[in-house]
Amino acid sequence: MLKPLADRVVIKMCEVEETTKSGIILAGNAQEKPQIAEVIEVGPGEEVEGKTIKMLVKKGDKVIASKYAGTEIKYEGQDLIIVKQSDILAIVE
Amino acid sequence: MLKPLADRVVIKMCEVEETTKSGIILAGNAQEKPQIAEVIEVGPGEEVEGKTIKMLVKKGDKVIASKYAGTEIKYEGQDLIIVKQSDILAIVE
Amino acid sequence: MLKPLADRVVIKMCEVEETTKSGIILAGNAQEKPQIAEVIEVGPGEEVEGKTIKMLVKKGDKVIASKYAGTEIKYEGQDLIIVKQSDILAIVE
Amino acid sequence: MLKPLADRVVIKMCEVEETTKSGIILAGNAQEKPQIAEVIEVGPGEEVEGKTIKMLVKKGDKVIASKYAGTEIKYEGQDLIIVKQSDILAIVE
Amino acid sequence: MLKPLADRVVIKMCEVEETTKSGIILAGNAQEKPQIAEVIEVGPGEEVEGKTIKMLVKKGDKVIASKYAGTEIKYEGQDLIIVKQSDILAIVE
Amino acid sequence: MLKPLADRVVIKMCEVEETTKSGIILAGNAQEKPQIAEVIEVGPGEEVEGKTIKMLVKKGDKVIASKYAGTEIKYEGQDLIIVKQSDILAIVE
Amino acid sequence: MLKPLADRVVIKMCEVEETTKSGIILAGNAQEKPQIAEVIEVGPGEEVEGKTIKMLVKKGDKVIASKYAGTEIKYEGQDLIIVKQSDILAIVE
Repeated sequence: MLKPLADRVVIKMCEVEETTKSGIILAGNAQEKPQIAEVIEVGPGEEVEGKTIKMLVKKGDKVIASKYAGTEIKYEGQDLIIVKQSDILAIVE
Repeated sequence: MLKPLADRVVIKMCEVEETTKSGIILAGNAQEKPQIAEVIEVGPGEEVEGKTIKMLVKKGDKVIASKYAGTEIKYEGQDLIIVKQSDILAIVE
Repeated sequence: MLKPLADRVVIKMCEVEETTKSGIILAGNAQEKPQIAEVIEVGPGEEVEGKTIKMLVKKGDKVIASKYAGTEIKYEGQDLIIVKQSDILAIVE
Repeated sequence: MLKPLADRVVIKMCEVEETTKSGIILAGNAQEKPQIAEVIEVGPGEEVEGKTIKMLVKKGDKVIASKYAGTEIKYEGQDLIIVKQSDILAIVE
Repeated sequence: MLKPLADRVVIKMCEVEETTKSGIILAGNAQEKPQIAEVIEVGPGEEVEGKTIKMLVKKGDKVIASKYAGTEIKYEGQDLIIVKQSDILAIVE
Repeated sequence: MLKPLADRVVIKMCEVEETTKSGIILAGNAQEKPQIAEVIEVGPGEEVEGKTIKMLVKKGDKVIASKYAGTEIKYEGQDLIIVKQSDILAIVE
Repeated sequence: MLKPLADRVVIKMCEVEETTKSGIILAGNAQEKPQIAEVIEVGPGEEVEGKTIKMLVKKGDKVIASKYAGTEIKYEGQDLIIVKQSDILAIVE
């Protein structure tokens, strides 16, 4: 299990199944895909370099993160990204 | 629904219908278009990295944002931009 | 009407009529033109990212601003610039 | 023995034996290797340049650190990396 | 009249008349000219972006300023420079 | 004698005699040499630009410093380096 | 007389007479010359941009300053350098 430190959050990009009603998978335009990720693990926040950080996201949230932010890792066969919470822009409800 | 985190604001550029009185759509000069956006969602502000941020804009406000600021996203068929409130320069009333 | 946020100020470069006494308009050297702007609107200042900013300029002031500072906008047919007050160097009286 | 100063942590990249069940060592794709390191020594934290830093990792922890962070050293025949704790992204449990 | 804002100071480079005793003007080596300026106007200091700045120079002082610092302006036929007080290195007495 | 100011430390790289048991000096691979230095003098720490710095190293300590950090000086025939304490990564005991 | 502002210090590089015992002046290797300067004038320190700076050097001290730091000036026929005290690394006693 991954336990992010401080104000870090482990996220996983959501796969977008671009299938038409008739079942054909389309090679969609990458730039038109929603950039939605799922929160996998959340750090404890608290005192981070002298500032108090309150964690605003929780496990299971769907979020939009800054493009290119964070560190990509491969963990137990999954492609994950570890970002700082400040790189998460919005929660999708 | 998109819930921006911290001091972030979701905006949508206003479309400018450049139509003459006779109904002809003109390919206007992009640099002469007003750079006005509508506020779609507003984050809660509050404690943002140790600083207290008071949100100054509200849903429905027409605003002028810094060019190139923020992250463009495609959400439910809409082209939106998520900016920090500090990238919003003025409210248009 | 434009309502600048926080410590921002809307200014408009003053036009310099370079006309000799005999009425001839001269194509003056741009670098010799005074760089004077008029203050059109002033933000409220107050708490700006955790710092208290006191606004020092008022509507109608003639000011000298840093070259290249701010964001140029076109609003109701006017060429305006939105700058932070810290980009205003001096008031001309 | 190495005693890291302040909020520094000495880590050692874990070797990944890429051996198939039949015992053949594979020249794996470097980008697919887990980026896991073991914590060898931990600094005391405390007052670091005017900020109080609480150490969150301990000797023996398996961690994921930012790629390229820190200073590589060779010490007693071992390839070690000295990183700041803020370059450690997550603990692997 | 120019009223510099905050911790700004209006200075004017002193002209150096490089004339020999026999009255011949020499094309001196620019790098050997003293870099002395006269203080023309001084801002009020006080609260500048959350810090209290005490003004240390006064009108008429001869000062040495950082090369290339500040904004050159042409005002009422004079070549002036508006610098922050922190760009003034020393007073010449 | 050199008295470093504030949080500075004077160090001297340790010479590594790469001699085999049979007495032959080897032209070792520079990158494999331990990067160990000896602390020659230590500044008083205390108030350094508004922050309180506690000195953690003492004269005679063997330390590992960041590569390329500091200013190389030649003093009384010795090649020394003046670094900030924050450029010292670990003490070797 | 030069009165440095705030935490600034006026220094003068010491000339190194590289003369052999037999009186021959050698064109020494610049990189081997000691980089020692004499303190000519010291600013008052005190409140410098919101931080309290205590001056640690005094007129007449021999010091080692960061290479390339500060502003070179020519004043009354002397080649001087105005540095911030934080660019002075050590006092030579």
